[in-house]
Amino acid sequence: MLHAVVMAGGSGTRFWPQSRTGRPKQFLRLFGDETLLQATLSRVGGWIPVERSWIVTNKSHAAETLRQLPALPASNILREPCGRNTAPCIGLAALQVAARDPDGIMLVMPADHFVPDAAAFRHAVERAVAIVTEDPASLLLFGVRPTYPCVSFGYIERGEPLPGDSSGAWRVASFREKPDRVRAEEFLVAGHFYWNSGIFVWNAATILQAIERFEPSISKSLDRLKPAVGTAGWDAALAAEFPAMKSISIDYAILERADHVCVLEAPFEWDDVGSWQALARRQEADAAGNTVDGPFCGIASSGCIISTTADHLVATIGLSDCVVVHTPDATLVARKDDEEGIRKLVQLLRERGYERFL
Amino acid sequence: MLHAVVMAGGSGTRFWPQSRTGRPKQFLRLFGDETLLQATLSRVGGWIPVERSWIVTNKSHAAETLRQLPALPASNILREPCGRNTAPCIGLAALQVAARDPDGIMLVMPADHFVPDAAAFRHAVERAVAIVTEDPASLLLFGVRPTYPCVSFGYIERGEPLPGDSSGAWRVASFREKPDRVRAEEFLVAGHFYWNSGIFVWNAATILQAIERFEPSISKSLDRLKPAVGTAGWDAALAAEFPAMKSISIDYAILERADHVCVLEAPFEWDDVGSWQALARRQEADAAGNTVDGPFCGIASSGCIISTTADHLVATIGLSDCVVVHTPDATLVARKDDEEGIRKLVQLLRERGYERFL
Repeated sequence: MLHAVVMAGGSGTRFWPQSRTGRPKQFLRLFGDETLLQATLSRVGGWIPVERSWIVTNKSHAAETLRQLPALPASNILREPCGRNTAPCIGLAALQVAARDPDGIMLVMPADHFVPDAAAFRHAVERAVAIVTEDPASLLLFGVRPTYPCVSFGYIERGEPLPGDSSGAWRVASFREKPDRVRAEEFLVAGHFYWNSGIFVWNAATILQAIERFEPSISKSLDRLKPAVGTAGWDAALAAEFPAMKSISIDYAILERADHVCVLEAPFEWDDVGSWQALARRQEADAAGNTVDGPFCGIASSGCIISTTADHLVATIGLSDCVVVHTPDATLVARKDDEEGIRKLVQLLRERGYERFL
Repeated sequence: MLHAVVMAGGSGTRFWPQSRTGRPKQFLRLFGDETLLQATLSRVGGWIPVERSWIVTNKSHAAETLRQLPALPASNILREPCGRNTAPCIGLAALQVAARDPDGIMLVMPADHFVPDAAAFRHAVERAVAIVTEDPASLLLFGVRPTYPCVSFGYIERGEPLPGDSSGAWRVASFREKPDRVRAEEFLVAGHFYWNSGIFVWNAATILQAIERFEPSISKSLDRLKPAVGTAGWDAALAAEFPAMKSISIDYAILERADHVCVLEAPFEWDDVGSWQALARRQEADAAGNTVDGPFCGIASSGCIISTTADHLVATIGLSDCVVVHTPDATLVARKDDEEGIRKLVQLLRERGYERFL
C-alpha cells in the first residue's frame, strides 16, 4: 500500500521575515488559502488516507502541524528532537511504514514545495508506484525538466531508459552538484539533465536495506528504535537515539551510491518555493510588473515583489527588482536576486542580539 | 516689543508616512525629544514670553498645537479655516500683534525648520531687531549662505550694504526663483546669493502698510477682521472672511515688490527639514553609511536613511541610497533623492482610494 511521507524539517530562513524559527515555510499561506503543508497533504488526500500519511517534523513544530492538519492521527507525526537532515528523517518514516505494512511503498515529499496540478501529480505517482512494484529494488526520484539555467538545484543526468513500457523513466547516470552558471547553461541545452525535485517513491523495506548497506551507523540506530515503534516509549527512545544519528542527506547517503536508482520525468508543474521569487513565478504581476499581495502603491517601481498584511500599506518610489516584505514586527527590503543575502542576514540578526525577530 | 509668530500651516506631504493630514511635519519628533514645533518655541522661550508668541495654524491642528504647547494662551493660536499661503497668514498675525502692541515687532518663523544653536539665533534676531528699530520701514529676512547648489530653495541676491554698523546686512538686489542645477552652481560660486530662510523680522505696522499697498484685497479683508480682534467673534469673523482671501506667499505678494527689503546673513546653522535627507544631515551615520533611527540590520546596504519604531525591525539587503520609513500602518521605501516622487505618491494614494493612509 502507498504511504505519504512528508518531510517538514525546514527552518525557513529564506522566507524571513514571514518564516521564523517557530513558523517555518511549510506553515505559510504563500499561495491561496492553504499553507504549503496543508496543500502537500491535500494533493494526495483523495487517494492516500490520513492513516497512511506521515509527517516528520521537529518536535517544536508538532503542535502547529496538528493544528493545521486536524484529521491526521497524532501518532502519524514523527517528532524529531533535532534536525539531522533527510537520511535519518526518511529512515524513521521507513521504520514506521514497514512496521505497519511490510510491503509498504513510500511517496516521500518535502512539506514546502508547490505542485499545483494534483491530478497530474497523482497520475505520475501511480506510474512511479508501478515501476517500483515491477522492480522492488528500485529507488525512484522525480526529475524536473529544467526551464532555465538554475544554479541553486542539484541536477540528475539520466542514463539508459528503463526496460519495458517506461517512457520518461531512466536509470540515473550521475548526480551533479549545484552547477555554476556556465555548467547550468550546458545542462539546460543538453536535454538529458533534470532538477532533483526531492520527491521520491520506493519500498520502505528497500530504503531500509540501502541504509543498512551504505550507512550502517544510521541503520543500527534504526534497529535500536524498532522495538519502540507504535509504543508509548517511542518519543523517549527517539530522544535517546536521534541526536547521535549522522546528519546527512538521503542523496549523499544513499542515492548517489546505490544501484537501481531511476529518474521519472515529472509530468507536473513543480516549484521548490526556494525564495520570494517563487511568488513572482506563481502570481500575475500588475501593469508595472510588480507582484503584489496586500495594499501597495508604487511610483516608478517595477519588478518588485511586495508582501504585506491587509491593514498595512507599502509604498515605493523608484524601486526596482526588490522584495519588500512587511510583517507586524519586522520588514525586509532586499534585492530579489540575492538569496544568499537572506542567509547572511539571519546570521547577522543572531550576532546583533535580534533573536527575538528570528 | 518683540513677538514670535510661528507659521504652522504645513501639510507635511514630504514626510509621509510619518507626517499625515492630521499630523504635519511640525508635530514630528525628527530630532531629539521635542517636536519641530516645540523646538521652534523653545528656541525663543528664554526671551519672548508665551503671551507674545503666536501660532498660525489650520483650525484642525489647533488642539494638537495646544497639547504640544500647554503653556501657550489658547487665544494666541490663530486658527485658519483653510490654507491661504503665507501672506494672509502673516497678515492675520500682524493684525493681532498691532492690536496688542502698536509698535510691536514680529519675528516670523516657520514651525518646521531646524536651528540647533538657540544662542546664535537669539543674537542674530537681536541684530535684526536693532536694524528694523533703526529703520522702521525695513522688511528684513534672514539669508542662509549656500553650502551646496540646492535647486529646491529660492535665492536672494544681495545688493548694497546697509548704512551704519551693519556688517552682514544688505539691501536685497533681487529675488531668484528655484534655479536649475547650472544656475544654482553659479549662485554658489558667486558668493553674494543667499537661500531665503523664510525667517523674517519687521514691524507689524510696516507689513500691514505693505499689504495695503501691494495687496489691497487682502488688506480690506484684514480691515474687516480688525473689529473682531480680541473678541469672542474672532473665529466666526475669520470663518466668514478668510476663505475668500487671496492665496499668495508673502514673498510674491510683498517682498519681491517692496522697497526697504533687506537681508541679514544668518550666522546660525539652519535646515528647512525639507525631506528625509535632513535626517542624514543632522545625524551621524553608522559604519556602513546608513542613518538609522530604530532597530535595523543591513547587509551590503549603504547610504540609506532608516526610520522605524522601537518594536519593529527593518532589515535590508543590497539597498543603497534609499529611505525606508516604517510606521504602524504604512511603510515607505524610496530613492532618497526623489523628493518629487513623494508628492506624486501622495496624489496616487488619493486616486487609489487610500486616503485612510494620508
